[in-house]
Order: sequence, then structure tokens, then C-alpha cells
Amino acid sequence: MNANMEKILKFTEELEKLKTVTRQNRTLDPNRQENSAEHSWHTAVMALMMKHYLPEDTDINKVVKMLLIHDVVEIDTGDTYLYDEEKRKQAIHKEAIAAERLFGLLPEPQKQEYLALWKEFEEKLTNEARSAAVLDALQPLINHNVTGTGNPGKMTRSRVIEKKLFIKDVSPQLWELAEHLINKAVEKGLFLNT
Amino acid sequence: MNANMEKILKFTEELEKLKTVTRQNRTLDPNRQENSAEHSWHTAVMALMMKHYLPEDTDINKVVKMLLIHDVVEIDTGDTYLYDEEKRKQAIHKEAIAAERLFGLLPEPQKQEYLALWKEFEEKLTNEARSAAVLDALQPLINHNVTGTGNPGKMTRSRVIEKKLFIKDVSPQLWELAEHLINKAVEKGLFLNT
Repeated sequence: MNANMEKILKFTEELEKLKTVTRQNRTLDPNRQENSAEHSWHTAVMALMMKHYLPEDTDINKVVKMLLIHDVVEIDTGDTYLYDEEKRKQAIHKEAIAAERLFGLLPEPQKQEYLALWKEFEEKLTNEARSAAVLDALQPLINHNVTGTGNPGKMTRSRVIEKKLFIKDVSPQLWELAEHLINKAVEKGLFLNT
Repeated sequence: MNANMEKILKFTEELEKLKTVTRQNRTLDPNRQENSAEHSWHTAVMALMMKHYLPEDTDINKVVKMLLIHDVVEIDTGDTYLYDEEKRKQAIHKEAIAAERLFGLLPEPQKQEYLALWKEFEEKLTNEARSAAVLDALQPLINHNVTGTGNPGKMTRSRVIEKKLFIKDVSPQLWELAEHLINKAVEKGLFLNT
């Protein structure tokens, strides 16, 4: 096996660990939280299905690639809950170190490509990064409603809207969907109505 | 919300169920089997990383799309173990019905697009479908070695080689990787050495 293949194998082996990184969200199995591998898959399929609602000139294949690798850093850092702002701030530096280590396992051109793609996602400046962020923010709303679980202690209608309102700037249609999902979750008592 | 968005939402909600479809493979969590959502994610990232070893003129974005949706039918049918040949035969018809139901939730052009993509994957005639099949077949070998689990009762070196040998025709380099992974699994006692 050549050296590049060995590096790719090492990276691929590391990916197995993302299946053990649990998120706050639940699954339809009452005994199990969602993990970041499942979440990444769900967002990537959503991107394919919702591509018509993303800004014109968005490279959908790049959005899918971004979503597939956007949480890989959590192999080293774990998932940081969106509504835990102190921890989110601390996570930024740790995630950058994790990205260097993990994408650094890859052969040189791929290392640079995926490190750049991950940074682009984090910076949220391009159509692709902003679109990926929309899918990343929509998926938990769908998950809450399907699994019938939320976190009424931390999640109120106004906090959720504050966190998700950027969707409106990227896609008015997907913001309409987000509002629908937020209203449904409030009706079901999954988010507090304040 | 317009009718198309409602259809896409319904499909996206269904996807949540794939996280509860368990496979024979294990995860790094000793209490938990791998599910088809995680598996799909893993294969899609592998496709991105291993694309240089796939046949020339392979549309890698199509391979990724295919891998993301290749197991969606299991929402209705469950996963069928590769080494259970009787059940695999019976599954083919059921999976076709499941594909009609599930992709049928989507708006018309997308329904046709994804039904065709799934059928293309099943038929294994194009470079993209054959490449997707290679990643689908390689991922469990990596999973076995990383999690240190296998099924020595059903899996012998010769049966695994028989099932995976098609990889050689698609990509000699990825077959070299598969052989390396099979040898490692036999050394570890995860597959029987017969």
C-alpha cells in the first residue's frame, strides 16, 4: 500500500469515532441521543433535496462536501451545544487545533483542500458556507418534531428564533419552513412559548 | 408553505428513521450496533477521500449522492445481511417497493431523479454505481478492524474475498486496500482463516 493510501486509511479509521460523539438531540430510539455522524448524513441529504431553495450560483456539490465534513473536528472536541454560549466561545480555538490534526492525517493536497473547506464553513462568508449553515440549523428543528423531544428548560421560542434568524437572509423559503417547525415545536411543548 | 416544500419536509422527516435501522456491524460503543445513516455518511466521506482511486471519468458528486441515498429503502425493509443469501434475494423486490414509496414522497422531478439514481446503484452498470458499490463494500472492512469486531461464525477469509472480489475490477488500488484489511481482520481473529 502506498503512503497516500495509508494516510487516507488512517483518516477513514478516525471517522469511526464521530459515531460516538453524541449531540443534545434525541433519536426515535428513546434510549439514544443522536450522534454527529448521523446528523451530518441527514444535513447532506437535506441539502440535495432543498437545493432549489438555496441562493442562485450556489455549488450544491460543495455544500454537500462541507456538510459531510463540518463536524469531523468533534472527534477531538465533542459537540458543543448551540445554546451554551460560554462553551461555544471556548470551542472555537479547540476546533481549529482538531481540524489541523484530523485533516492533517490526509495526503498534502487533500489536507489543504479539506482544511480550507472546513474554514470556509466556519467563516460563513460564501453562498456555500451560508447554505450549509442553513441546513445545519434546520435539521435539529426537524429532528425535534419527529422525535417529539426538545429542551424546554433552555429552548424558548425567542431564543430559537434568535439563533436561526440568519436563515431568512439566505433563503426566505427555508425560513418559512423554519418558522413552521418552530411553531409546531412550541405547540407540542418542546420549546417554551416565551 | 407550498406543496413541494411540504413533500420535501415529509421525506426529510422519514429520513430520521434510518438512524434506527441497525446493521450487523458494531460501533466503538460496545452497547450499540452501527446504523444505516452512519454507514451512509461514512461511505460518502470515503468516496471523497478515495476518488483518485476510482475509474477515470467517474462523476464523484454522483457517487456521493448515490451513497447518501443508497440505503434509504431500508427505512421500510430493514438492513439485509450480506452473508445471508436467502434473505438478500427476497429483499430485492421489497426494496423496489420501498423505493417507490419513499422517493415517491418527493415532488415529481426529484422523485424521478432519485428513483433513477437508486436503480442505477442497484444495477451496478455505470462507473458511478460500481464505484459506490466499492465504497459500500470497503466501509465494513474498515469498521471491523477499528471496532475489533467481526462474525467468525459466518465470515471466513474465502467468503469475504468472494463477496468483495468485484472491487478488483473497479479499482486495483482499492482492492489492495481491501486485501490488507481482510488480512488484518483474519490476524485479529475477526474472520475465520479458511
